[in-house]
Amino acid sequence: MKVAIIGATGYGGAELVRILHRHPKVSIHSIHATSMHGEKLNTIFPHMQHLIQDTLEEADLDQLAKEVDIVFTATPSGVAKNIAPLLVEKGVKVIDLSGDFRINNRETYKKWYKINAAEQEKLDQAVYGLTEWVEKDLQKVNLIANPGCFPTAVLLGLAPLVKEGIIDENMIIIDAKTGVSGAGKSASQGTHFPETNDNLKIYKVHAHQHTPEIEEQLQNWNEKIGPVTFTTHLAPMTRGIMATMYLTAKESTTTKNLTELFQKQYKDNHFIRIQEGRFPSTKEVSGSNFCDIAVAYDERTKRITVVSVIDNLVKGASGQAVQNMNKMLGFDEHEGIDFMPLFP
Amino acid sequence: MKVAIIGATGYGGAELVRILHRHPKVSIHSIHATSMHGEKLNTIFPHMQHLIQDTLEEADLDQLAKEVDIVFTATPSGVAKNIAPLLVEKGVKVIDLSGDFRINNRETYKKWYKINAAEQEKLDQAVYGLTEWVEKDLQKVNLIANPGCFPTAVLLGLAPLVKEGIIDENMIIIDAKTGVSGAGKSASQGTHFPETNDNLKIYKVHAHQHTPEIEEQLQNWNEKIGPVTFTTHLAPMTRGIMATMYLTAKESTTTKNLTELFQKQYKDNHFIRIQEGRFPSTKEVSGSNFCDIAVAYDERTKRITVVSVIDNLVKGASGQAVQNMNKMLGFDEHEGIDFMPLFP
Amino acid sequence: MKVAIIGATGYGGAELVRILHRHPKVSIHSIHATSMHGEKLNTIFPHMQHLIQDTLEEADLDQLAKEVDIVFTATPSGVAKNIAPLLVEKGVKVIDLSGDFRINNRETYKKWYKINAAEQEKLDQAVYGLTEWVEKDLQKVNLIANPGCFPTAVLLGLAPLVKEGIIDENMIIIDAKTGVSGAGKSASQGTHFPETNDNLKIYKVHAHQHTPEIEEQLQNWNEKIGPVTFTTHLAPMTRGIMATMYLTAKESTTTKNLTELFQKQYKDNHFIRIQEGRFPSTKEVSGSNFCDIAVAYDERTKRITVVSVIDNLVKGASGQAVQNMNKMLGFDEHEGIDFMPLFP
Amino acid sequence: MKVAIIGATGYGGAELVRILHRHPKVSIHSIHATSMHGEKLNTIFPHMQHLIQDTLEEADLDQLAKEVDIVFTATPSGVAKNIAPLLVEKGVKVIDLSGDFRINNRETYKKWYKINAAEQEKLDQAVYGLTEWVEKDLQKVNLIANPGCFPTAVLLGLAPLVKEGIIDENMIIIDAKTGVSGAGKSASQGTHFPETNDNLKIYKVHAHQHTPEIEEQLQNWNEKIGPVTFTTHLAPMTRGIMATMYLTAKESTTTKNLTELFQKQYKDNHFIRIQEGRFPSTKEVSGSNFCDIAVAYDERTKRITVVSVIDNLVKGASGQAVQNMNKMLGFDEHEGIDFMPLFP
Repeated sequence: MKVAIIGATGYGGAELVRILHRHPKVSIHSIHATSMHGEKLNTIFPHMQHLIQDTLEEADLDQLAKEVDIVFTATPSGVAKNIAPLLVEKGVKVIDLSGDFRINNRETYKKWYKINAAEQEKLDQAVYGLTEWVEKDLQKVNLIANPGCFPTAVLLGLAPLVKEGIIDENMIIIDAKTGVSGAGKSASQGTHFPETNDNLKIYKVHAHQHTPEIEEQLQNWNEKIGPVTFTTHLAPMTRGIMATMYLTAKESTTTKNLTELFQKQYKDNHFIRIQEGRFPSTKEVSGSNFCDIAVAYDERTKRITVVSVIDNLVKGASGQAVQNMNKMLGFDEHEGIDFMPLFP
Repeated sequence: MKVAIIGATGYGGAELVRILHRHPKVSIHSIHATSMHGEKLNTIFPHMQHLIQDTLEEADLDQLAKEVDIVFTATPSGVAKNIAPLLVEKGVKVIDLSGDFRINNRETYKKWYKINAAEQEKLDQAVYGLTEWVEKDLQKVNLIANPGCFPTAVLLGLAPLVKEGIIDENMIIIDAKTGVSGAGKSASQGTHFPETNDNLKIYKVHAHQHTPEIEEQLQNWNEKIGPVTFTTHLAPMTRGIMATMYLTAKESTTTKNLTELFQKQYKDNHFIRIQEGRFPSTKEVSGSNFCDIAVAYDERTKRITVVSVIDNLVKGASGQAVQNMNKMLGFDEHEGIDFMPLFP
Repeated sequence: MKVAIIGATGYGGAELVRILHRHPKVSIHSIHATSMHGEKLNTIFPHMQHLIQDTLEEADLDQLAKEVDIVFTATPSGVAKNIAPLLVEKGVKVIDLSGDFRINNRETYKKWYKINAAEQEKLDQAVYGLTEWVEKDLQKVNLIANPGCFPTAVLLGLAPLVKEGIIDENMIIIDAKTGVSGAGKSASQGTHFPETNDNLKIYKVHAHQHTPEIEEQLQNWNEKIGPVTFTTHLAPMTRGIMATMYLTAKESTTTKNLTELFQKQYKDNHFIRIQEGRFPSTKEVSGSNFCDIAVAYDERTKRITVVSVIDNLVKGASGQAVQNMNKMLGFDEHEGIDFMPLFP
Repeated sequence: MKVAIIGATGYGGAELVRILHRHPKVSIHSIHATSMHGEKLNTIFPHMQHLIQDTLEEADLDQLAKEVDIVFTATPSGVAKNIAPLLVEKGVKVIDLSGDFRINNRETYKKWYKINAAEQEKLDQAVYGLTEWVEKDLQKVNLIANPGCFPTAVLLGLAPLVKEGIIDENMIIIDAKTGVSGAGKSASQGTHFPETNDNLKIYKVHAHQHTPEIEEQLQNWNEKIGPVTFTTHLAPMTRGIMATMYLTAKESTTTKNLTELFQKQYKDNHFIRIQEGRFPSTKEVSGSNFCDIAVAYDERTKRITVVSVIDNLVKGASGQAVQNMNKMLGFDEHEGIDFMPLFP
């Protein structure tokens, strides 16, 4: 099987290359970007020397359609909405790592992303690829909207509680913290080392574009879900997301009961590791496709705390994309992504 | 005026030395610890060379009582509860930086600290020294319980809303993040660099001993306050606390109204800087006694987010202790602590 | 083929587990430590959950000899010198990651390590495993002294110049910088996060025990080599070593000529990446077995600068150990260790 | 006395503001930049809120000459060479923090800075302000070239050895490491957090523009000095420079003798702290004007290692500038800059 990557010069694209070049069942056919055509990828990413010899090419969709089986689009907002449907029409499967197909409601997309959404018909074709909870048979799906980094950590942590109706649907509070690689490869004042190092920032308060993505999925699972509070912080680290979620239990329960619920719901999911009697930290999943989750009930407040950690570039982006690819192509789900985290 | 410091070998004590040696109205009489008597403090803290020549001495309370005007106790839990009352009896003013006098309810203290509290009569003598909100005339006070680092950030951020009855008293959720200096000077596996660097941890979930300290003060201000959710995270940075607080508004309001309320309530407080149209980060107060606060209302959820940042070792410990000393001794409140933050 | 690891609870041991559990040609038979018998390794290293189920066992050398083909000893100084020869006698191959067999001169060892060396006869059996430069057929070798982290970076960077006689043998100056994982898993004041973060330290000036290891190898290559200056710094990062080496050219040359010499000497060595027109940084090899090297000639001073970077836990320890194992067992050299660095 | 700052929006300018606003003998008259006129400095640097109310103004040299006593220029290369002489002509004292007046040889300047130098006559007016070693009476000097950050650390560490003729003049090797604030306030790919964090880089090998500055001063002290090897590394920390210097002793000596030489030469210099039996780290001087130095002799190699650390923004820039101002204006040398380092 052959894959192409459109948008290989960002961190998401580079991480796709890292994963796919070792994948036992697919090979990288070509890599594409809007500029720097003819340049070797290992010039932009010297850590790839001796392993990756590909050069960046312009993407010719017709040709790609003839030569590859699946295309990953790791492009800025507003690009994939045009490219992906064309590729699908030509018979290629597409996994889009941008936000273009994640939100089915076009008005919501426009409100949060400030640009026009894809056509409704195209949006309806896309399946939201939170792999552990996809209900459709992915082998029959041609277009996957790969989840955002924050929604992945959040939704995996909330799913058991929301689906079982355990929590107050109108009192969901999510305090998320991310490493700085989440801001992408382009330098900016907000990611300038001297002002980011040894510093903790909060950003996009009440305004992060991943908010409606989270809400739409939660409402798919439980239509009573109201608007969530979702806040994002920038921690002085490179990789990792921790979502700490504060929820109100409808009825008294125990940490033990909740942990068992999570263990049961995720018992067949290799990449979800439910913690018992301890809490996860971001470094424990760094470089891997794991999502580690702990849940605790506080008798004093009748509130539940869920902690969910992922590597934002792996399970939060490229790792999950390959996990989806594996299911689309009928491979074993962990083929090529069963890395042990790099610790310390 | 002369001051002594008992417990000078921890970070809180060292920071007291840094501040007091430049204070224009007091001088450091002596520094004390339970061990290493005769050793120069600048051997333990080489950054003090050429500035501090004091050696560590055993604390003789009788002698201290004769020679100094005020004593700072920066000792582990359970030490000051014995020392401080003796000093007060002998006519010396005491500012305790430990938790021993912060909680008035003895059972609550025992439950969270796992040791016996000071006698009730002694506890009743102590004034909780969240300087901006102390109602008593500090010049008439002899024993101050200097607030914990987390409670300082949290209470300064919640006070206007709680006192004005703007928020649901039973829905207070506090997500706090601290730098690692909060764990003290002693090394441990939990603060080992390779496992702390580039990592984000959550700890003492539903079990942090600062929880009852926060609740007791909030209830002093508004007796309807219920138990709060208070969770602490360890961020890979040395100094700084950010408390992100999620609150439910009783009635619709606006960010502008809330900001004006904060500005009004803190208009005479030099060390509280209300942010307008932006959010603070921890580095913006590093090395200073400032507490920077922003508040925002989210129309979608009817919830209020408050963000409060401090330097845990300054406003969260030694800086506030000196602020309290200034008021006890009748000095100008910012005497000796009006540092500009060290940025970047 | 079956392998055992003695000393699995340190960072070197954990990294061996990470690498070996994915190795296509060997399987981990058992893991051993001097304490915590019966405890699961994934309790000590939670990042291994769902991947490693082994428990720590006491090492019974007789039994091991019967059941495994090769043993890795990742033990503190002075342990392997007793264990390894016994295992070799019983017919097992051993790769020792400690310093016990790296220095052939017993007096030198005692002087720098402050403990007695292994017996001369045993030392003579051991081959120094700087894989790229081993001359013996490793398939015929039973005991490998795996090089130290610093010597690996240093020797790979110096070999071409020393072997070709290009530099003044008495003017070798090595300024080495390491990440803190090099200090091992045990916490100490010197690795306490608040005092290590945002800080650069120098340590063991003129006294690092890797100095004689470097000198002995250089002298094996060129007997005129005099004592080297070797200084080590602790940089606020987790992984990575950079050795910056200052050398005096015997004759005028050019950066181009030197680079070509390095390219030629390492043309068959996949894990050595000679940089041209740029210099490497430690993150570019993080998590991988690569050693990236650049060389530059300064016409003004007639001096040569060589920069060599490795991941101290991979090429500087466990990765190279597996590279040696591959050669001992007749596998392809990069079997199981051809990871792409984790960047960013 | 009144001071103005031209170039207040960079880190050097901001640090001048931090220091000068608390200086007991001068007041900040005005702050200037080439853009953002009318904007409050505390909008650009929010950490200055409540302390600094100045707005950025265009610099009118005639008016400044009438109203202020001294001007600091913290401008990019090539700007002060035009401004400073005009101000001096009009009777104002100038301290230039850029490189424009540091190198007396115009050809050397052009070769390393790639732009034309100031006129020779103007260069001859400037005094190189390495405060501890300035021979002229600074009260009679009108234009000071404030030393570069690296040269400050390097020259303070080399001066005793070079002046006393103890070392081989043709074998001076300087391995320097800096925090990222040395790269200035402007963001770039090279200072992007995800690629700088947890990473160690080497840059400008054999090509750093501080090389000729170091050489010219050393040659002023000892004309036999040959070209030096000077290499710079970027460490993942915000502030701090460590220069590790490798020197060849002309005759055998001891660490004790060398340390005593340093102690003697710097006995009247409050800001130079000679370490005995230990080595300094960068954090021990952070936020302060101290330069901590250790020297060690290695009997094995007959080489001397000198380690010198400073805060690049204080002693390496703005602190030393104020130290020079103090001497120019006849104040006590440590007036306003005798901060204790911020540790941890």
